[in-house]
Amino acid sequence: MAGHTREADGALIMSHKVTWSRFFPILEWGSTYSGAAALNDLTAAVIVTIMLIPQSLAYAMLAGLPPEAGLYASIVPILLYSLFGTSRSLAVGPVAVVSLMTAATLAEVTQAIDVGYATAALSLAGMSGAILLTMGLLRLGFVANFLSHPVISGFITASGILIAVSQLKHVLGVEAHGHTLPDIAGAIFAHVTQTNLLTLAIGAGAIVFLFWVRTGLRPTLIRLGLRPGAADFIAKAGPVLAVVTTTLCVWGFDLDHAGVQIVGAVPQSLPPFTLPDVSFELLAALFVPAALISIIGFVESISVAQTLATKKRQRIDPDQELIGLGAANLGASLTGGFPVTGGFSRSVVNFDAGAQTPAAGAYTAIGLAVAALFLTPLIFFLPKATLAATIIVAVLSLVDIKTLRHSWTYSKRDFGAVAVTVLLTLGLGVELGVTAGVLLSLLLFLYDTSRPHVAEVGLVRGTEHFRNILRHEVVTDPTVLSLRIDQSLYFANARFLENYIYDRIIDDNDLKHVILMCSAVNEIDLSALETLELINIRLKELGIVLSLSEVKGPVMDRLRRGSFLDHLTGHVYLSQFAAFRSVTSQPDTVSALAAQDCANVFCR
Amino acid sequence: MAGHTREADGALIMSHKVTWSRFFPILEWGSTYSGAAALNDLTAAVIVTIMLIPQSLAYAMLAGLPPEAGLYASIVPILLYSLFGTSRSLAVGPVAVVSLMTAATLAEVTQAIDVGYATAALSLAGMSGAILLTMGLLRLGFVANFLSHPVISGFITASGILIAVSQLKHVLGVEAHGHTLPDIAGAIFAHVTQTNLLTLAIGAGAIVFLFWVRTGLRPTLIRLGLRPGAADFIAKAGPVLAVVTTTLCVWGFDLDHAGVQIVGAVPQSLPPFTLPDVSFELLAALFVPAALISIIGFVESISVAQTLATKKRQRIDPDQELIGLGAANLGASLTGGFPVTGGFSRSVVNFDAGAQTPAAGAYTAIGLAVAALFLTPLIFFLPKATLAATIIVAVLSLVDIKTLRHSWTYSKRDFGAVAVTVLLTLGLGVELGVTAGVLLSLLLFLYDTSRPHVAEVGLVRGTEHFRNILRHEVVTDPTVLSLRIDQSLYFANARFLENYIYDRIIDDNDLKHVILMCSAVNEIDLSALETLELINIRLKELGIVLSLSEVKGPVMDRLRRGSFLDHLTGHVYLSQFAAFRSVTSQPDTVSALAAQDCANVFCR
Repeated sequence: MAGHTREADGALIMSHKVTWSRFFPILEWGSTYSGAAALNDLTAAVIVTIMLIPQSLAYAMLAGLPPEAGLYASIVPILLYSLFGTSRSLAVGPVAVVSLMTAATLAEVTQAIDVGYATAALSLAGMSGAILLTMGLLRLGFVANFLSHPVISGFITASGILIAVSQLKHVLGVEAHGHTLPDIAGAIFAHVTQTNLLTLAIGAGAIVFLFWVRTGLRPTLIRLGLRPGAADFIAKAGPVLAVVTTTLCVWGFDLDHAGVQIVGAVPQSLPPFTLPDVSFELLAALFVPAALISIIGFVESISVAQTLATKKRQRIDPDQELIGLGAANLGASLTGGFPVTGGFSRSVVNFDAGAQTPAAGAYTAIGLAVAALFLTPLIFFLPKATLAATIIVAVLSLVDIKTLRHSWTYSKRDFGAVAVTVLLTLGLGVELGVTAGVLLSLLLFLYDTSRPHVAEVGLVRGTEHFRNILRHEVVTDPTVLSLRIDQSLYFANARFLENYIYDRIIDDNDLKHVILMCSAVNEIDLSALETLELINIRLKELGIVLSLSEVKGPVMDRLRRGSFLDHLTGHVYLSQFAAFRSVTSQPDTVSALAAQDCANVFCR
Repeated sequence: MAGHTREADGALIMSHKVTWSRFFPILEWGSTYSGAAALNDLTAAVIVTIMLIPQSLAYAMLAGLPPEAGLYASIVPILLYSLFGTSRSLAVGPVAVVSLMTAATLAEVTQAIDVGYATAALSLAGMSGAILLTMGLLRLGFVANFLSHPVISGFITASGILIAVSQLKHVLGVEAHGHTLPDIAGAIFAHVTQTNLLTLAIGAGAIVFLFWVRTGLRPTLIRLGLRPGAADFIAKAGPVLAVVTTTLCVWGFDLDHAGVQIVGAVPQSLPPFTLPDVSFELLAALFVPAALISIIGFVESISVAQTLATKKRQRIDPDQELIGLGAANLGASLTGGFPVTGGFSRSVVNFDAGAQTPAAGAYTAIGLAVAALFLTPLIFFLPKATLAATIIVAVLSLVDIKTLRHSWTYSKRDFGAVAVTVLLTLGLGVELGVTAGVLLSLLLFLYDTSRPHVAEVGLVRGTEHFRNILRHEVVTDPTVLSLRIDQSLYFANARFLENYIYDRIIDDNDLKHVILMCSAVNEIDLSALETLELINIRLKELGIVLSLSEVKGPVMDRLRRGSFLDHLTGHVYLSQFAAFRSVTSQPDTVSALAAQDCANVFCR
């Protein structure tokens, strides 16, 4: 069954067969590409291109790079992803969180090593591409599963706040550096008296305008009689409108001479061919940050891709996605870009605009190439405050208070991991924050499994079912102790079980039988087996018979390989009921109690 | 019930009540100390003292320290442990593996930092003591549970081999340094032509003699008519005999002038009061090695303590053990010692010789103090080859091929972790070896939990019990899919379950119900809850009702906090049988099948 997927049209295709199309998904959709699909893709591409021009410039600024790097990072990577990626809607390019991580990495690395900032950005993209590609070829896509959703959501929230605050400097027109909240906020506060009021007017105006475009413009346009499609288009062009208006203002009133920072001269060029610095020293310094950027970028990208694919019943192959993103990043490093990944907002826009195949991405790339060739002189007077406003409005949608609140209600443990991630990201920077959060969530899980829940169980009347004696009214026998172990047994919890059993039996002189109900034991490793052998011996010395029940097939197979079953004083029973009836002194009473007729629905 | 323990004499005491005796176990046994116990303790102390004199000198040499350091490290630490420790048989002092780790650490640190070797040893013991004490006060004894038995056994095996090979240089009388097998073996091989034949004769003779003492002497003595007790005593004094004989040989034949390396002048003194170097640079460099030494030492010590305590139905408190070992190491750092822990052979000898209370340790300390004061001139001519022989014979008993073989049969995964530990310890050194082994065993466990076993289950005739359709002959209904999830659901495996279900149902057009049997689900975290919500929605779109069965109490409590149960299309049933009978189209047939009389024992 595995390997099949149902396409939107209902036809079945094999998505995992090992053919050329495994590595080149384009062969799959390219062979049936129709005129109708092309028209849909073209429409989507126009909308996405218009949206991407200011966004690309802005994220380049966030990464600390010249604006054209943002355009370059959106052209070849999109093309490469459309060749290798499995998502039909994902739009690849610079995104907020990865740009922030890029800036933090490059600031640190260029201080320690004598290398140009832009060159180091190429190396970072190249290394990130190599890591992603390697992971894809080794089929390590599952690694992303170890990053817990709440932790990632907390990390992205904190990054959003960091980015928004860091962009305030452009809105105020002051100098401020730093990669943690206290640093940035402190630096901005120290220079707040030097605020350029004209810059502030442009920046604040753009922010208000962009917020209104997001929330109020579309309904207003529709109320004014526009078709929803057209209203959508205009709403998405909002940032471009802000760019055009503020650029004209600066140009018309000579505001650049009044201290308003502008983008300035941007070369008119297609993405240049560039070579990253591959000195060992630089690559060694970049390895850890590149790995973090790769994994975070991959997680972000695959979440978007899967969300969109689910809506159309398409399938995403995580390993192939790694290859697609790896190719995109290698492309970025060879064409003047910086690390890229699949972005949420641009992909959603692409999807909503009706993109049907990755060809939409190719058309977008062409659009951006045209922009890079012909439109860059037009943004000479574009104020940086406008770009900062674009970023601020975009990243505030990353702030996800809902997950924080949800985790608080559902589990204090999940909340703890999220809170630590948010606080460390804000206080100590992105790398430490996300690493600590991911490790903490794994450690908490491991700690949990090392102290397994063990329940003493009894028979529920009218059933053959055994439940916790503390939570249900059940039948027990004072000579029989039935314990349900709610965890796989492995080295970290074997000793806990041992102590639990000894503590429980030490004063119980009536006890003749201990039955371990293994319905929740999915694995018994060698350490745990040794412990079970010890428990068996110790109970034997005390005159107590040890039996097991409901041992799963794979576990039973494993037990048969050792000598444990030969020495076991009792038996292994198919069900807890069979075990209980077999060892109790009153089997007939037990059978009668099980046969009574009772209601069986647990809740609702 | 927890907190009670049964003493050897059958009386019950509380071992976890928070009183003075929680931190000073001596208050517990001291108040009832009898003359008979004192006699037993004294006898044991004499035997252990005789055994410890050569052993202490030898382990000091292994750690790269002057011989007296071994005696000092055995005196105050034993006394302090007897005040704070919970084991009544544990003998604390220098042990082989910790001495090896000490040598590796000090060689590295004294190369990088300008500090004396012996002073750095004091700092290492002090830092290790502080770490153990802190862990004890924070009740972090459970951390030891995360070191899997097979990995530790592999590490100790590899350490034994490393130690034995490293001591060959003393047996051959050549110079050789290094902390990995290739380094040491290479160095010895390079100098093998410079072998001092007299040294070799002494060393090889001592090895053969000591092996014979271990295996052949005791039976021979008994055959010659000695009482077993006396034979035991003489067998344990074997190393002393070797020391005396070889020392006399060197002295009598002037062998030290013929190139036989001797111990030389050892000061006659009680343990001196020493202060470790506490410069930040040194402590920072020592932190990681000290933590490793502490944890490995703790694990080794607590295994011995628990093995011996189990035999007498005594209880070991891991957190208090940390405090006892911490105090012992702090004591070692203030009295000219080096890192210590509870040793296997010395503790077993202590136990076998009849030690009843920690007072035996105190008497041993007095015996060693007497030796340090009066006997050191006698070992001037003691050849280093004899000490090396003592070490080699002692550590070869650490080599545990059984666990390696056992893990190979039982589980290739356990074997893999052990093999990696052994190879890395031999090839790259102790720190890397044990760290890699422990991390690998945890990663393998995490990987396992991320790909949970999911079984399609059906009703076993004659029971209300459901088992895997692939392993048992069971009853199923084509409109009902019953899936048993053999794992807690958490962030690392939620997506796996989602894909599994979609893959399974995508072609099954008859399906009307999916029941997730949650008997093995001990926890559902927030990420997994979100996934269940998604699965519920997706199945609803396909017209399939999702139900759960056998949800455990704590998990149910958690689910009630969210809105998942409100949106669930089906119900939560107490048992899988209730769920199946409720949703199947033929409930009467199902009931009749369950009531049939069949044999129920799974195996044996």
